[in-house]
Amino acid sequence: MKALGPIPAGYEAIDGVLAVAGRPVTEWVEEAGETPLFLYSADLIRARVAQLRAAMPEQLALHYAVKANPFGPVLELFSGLVDGFDIASGGELALVQAAGIASARVSFAGPGKRDRELEAAIAAGVTLNLESEAEAWRAIAIAETLGMTPRLAIRVNPSFDLKGSGMKMGGGAKQFGIDAERVPALAREIVAAGAEWRGFHIFAGSQALDASAIADTQAQAIALAAQLAQESGIAVPHCNLGGGMGIPYFPGDMPVDVTLVGERLAEQFAALPDELRETEFCMELGRYLVGEAGVYVTRIVDRKVSHGEVFLVTDGGLHHQLAASGNFGTVVRRNYPVAIATRYGAEVEEEASVVGCLCTPLDRLADKAGFPQADVGDLVAVFCAGAYGASASPSAFLGQGAAVELLV
Amino acid sequence: MKALGPIPAGYEAIDGVLAVAGRPVTEWVEEAGETPLFLYSADLIRARVAQLRAAMPEQLALHYAVKANPFGPVLELFSGLVDGFDIASGGELALVQAAGIASARVSFAGPGKRDRELEAAIAAGVTLNLESEAEAWRAIAIAETLGMTPRLAIRVNPSFDLKGSGMKMGGGAKQFGIDAERVPALAREIVAAGAEWRGFHIFAGSQALDASAIADTQAQAIALAAQLAQESGIAVPHCNLGGGMGIPYFPGDMPVDVTLVGERLAEQFAALPDELRETEFCMELGRYLVGEAGVYVTRIVDRKVSHGEVFLVTDGGLHHQLAASGNFGTVVRRNYPVAIATRYGAEVEEEASVVGCLCTPLDRLADKAGFPQADVGDLVAVFCAGAYGASASPSAFLGQGAAVELLV
Repeated sequence: MKALGPIPAGYEAIDGVLAVAGRPVTEWVEEAGETPLFLYSADLIRARVAQLRAAMPEQLALHYAVKANPFGPVLELFSGLVDGFDIASGGELALVQAAGIASARVSFAGPGKRDRELEAAIAAGVTLNLESEAEAWRAIAIAETLGMTPRLAIRVNPSFDLKGSGMKMGGGAKQFGIDAERVPALAREIVAAGAEWRGFHIFAGSQALDASAIADTQAQAIALAAQLAQESGIAVPHCNLGGGMGIPYFPGDMPVDVTLVGERLAEQFAALPDELRETEFCMELGRYLVGEAGVYVTRIVDRKVSHGEVFLVTDGGLHHQLAASGNFGTVVRRNYPVAIATRYGAEVEEEASVVGCLCTPLDRLADKAGFPQADVGDLVAVFCAGAYGASASPSAFLGQGAAVELLV
Repeated sequence: MKALGPIPAGYEAIDGVLAVAGRPVTEWVEEAGETPLFLYSADLIRARVAQLRAAMPEQLALHYAVKANPFGPVLELFSGLVDGFDIASGGELALVQAAGIASARVSFAGPGKRDRELEAAIAAGVTLNLESEAEAWRAIAIAETLGMTPRLAIRVNPSFDLKGSGMKMGGGAKQFGIDAERVPALAREIVAAGAEWRGFHIFAGSQALDASAIADTQAQAIALAAQLAQESGIAVPHCNLGGGMGIPYFPGDMPVDVTLVGERLAEQFAALPDELRETEFCMELGRYLVGEAGVYVTRIVDRKVSHGEVFLVTDGGLHHQLAASGNFGTVVRRNYPVAIATRYGAEVEEEASVVGCLCTPLDRLADKAGFPQADVGDLVAVFCAGAYGASASPSAFLGQGAAVELLV
């Protein structure tokens, strides 16, 4: 029997049924009218932000990375909770605008910005995190055509990476940012060109669980920002330290010790070099803020036995949960936290695999794990579905279409 | 320098630019008005079907697996080229209906069929490839409510698999089909229930390149069909032998020797056991028919150097080409066939990586491969993009949206 990932805190049972936001998922399914369904808990998002604010130094600003979950109501909720938003495309710019978020709170990072995306962002007053010298010149030329002053920051490709991170964004040759040694010259040229200088964006990795590694990386980022400020002779109005904090997905994963991260960051802030005394620092988080607040609910449409193995076949699958199926950014497939939502908390009675409805062996949501006995009509919950779920999965695959999403 | 996959036959250069369907891709891009862009060559699809028909015994019917590429104009083209269509969802049923394909030519396989999908399929007269006993009873009950006679076949989970296949669909416990030993009893019950009995669907794997392994598997499937016919005492009107034939994606891959597959199948057909003399056999192919006929065209928006490595950043990426990025069904990332379309056939001048515009290190279309020197504005072609491209990728990821598709 293979282990399942740890179910996040904050979920309980009501009469043996998994509850989200105080109501059993069966009621949410009834309200939605169908399965599969993504449920995002506003309370869990609020609680996560509050817990993080409490742990972090007061002067640290908090940004939400839209890519983690761009669902409109989620963006509207975050609008009242965080200080800024980071987008990664013109499409995400349209989404934050539709959610009523002021463009002055928005910054735009991403290695392949097209001219029309730069134009829309500059026209709206969004800060651009520049990914290359060529992008800087394109942005400045477009701003000139528009008669606007562009708000420009430089995304730095640091020479360090985030130890133990699921995805490394720094340390060696990367498509992200500008190699640190070339940054001071570009910063001077940007200022000389008359742009509004916004500072640095220093990202070294994401989905790390080791608080001490995260703190070390933040210290390195602050030291690098100071060094770049000194070398360029230009003040740093703003410095985005990136995120890096992950969530537990797999058996044995432990939550990040945010208290430690906050304490270490407070020590850094207390001893800032002169160059950075006026700098506003932020962390940019996506998955950490919303990932554990989401549950994907899918119904069992068949229960099959093949060569003695039990398969619970659901009406959902990898077209909504690509990462949970083990097909996105993971080398070895491990089980996410998955439960029978309509027998929540019941004893394990059998080994079963939860598979999706797609006609491909890749579509597996839980592999040979222990569950209470479940049958056709029962609901399955896949946890950690709040980030990189609906929008990061191929919803049109095999003619399926998107799942319903609800912020509750 | 890492190798690139082999460029399929049928592509040439016109004045140094990759041509598809007789015109340089630059013209297609101009006609489409934007990049990225999927181009599917009708001529290459027709040629592939003709080549296959020539190699196979005349009595073999040919089915197209819609999941490989459900683009409407592609379905309409196949309508005049193949004998049948296999769908995997109610959504795909709507697509084939929209393409004007008669439902009598359509069969529906897939492990998680919902009641409403069964209802739509039965009402339309589609053949159901049943994936479990429970699904059989659901289908029969729904047909009774509709006052229809359901057309039912059984998908068999064979005890053998297809050697060397990229995806195994048989051999051991599977979510697909019904274990062979339980099939005769169910076949008798289906006939007794008054359904229109359509026979068997025996699929052992897909994306195999070894002709001899494919032929062996087809021989095993025919022997299994004969055995099941004998054990059940029921004739087999139709037998879907599955597909299995793959296309070369990676360095060193060689095309399937279809002549050998056809010769071996002809030998099988010449020596059919009595039980199968009246049986109509078909092969169901998706990727093999359309995969190599498609090219994904994306424009370079930035050329970056980081720590001495060259990155060509494009306006496309894994949101349209998940499999080419190495994130779908592959354990070790290898390069697809990729070329600089606007310098097609030019000498290799440098090592470069082609990356997409998404803000994730997963978004890599070619890793450290040899290319002629390319710059901003040049077009990149990713080959083998005709199957499992547009519809099997998370197009909404990072707010990007779908690519244009053109059948040319």
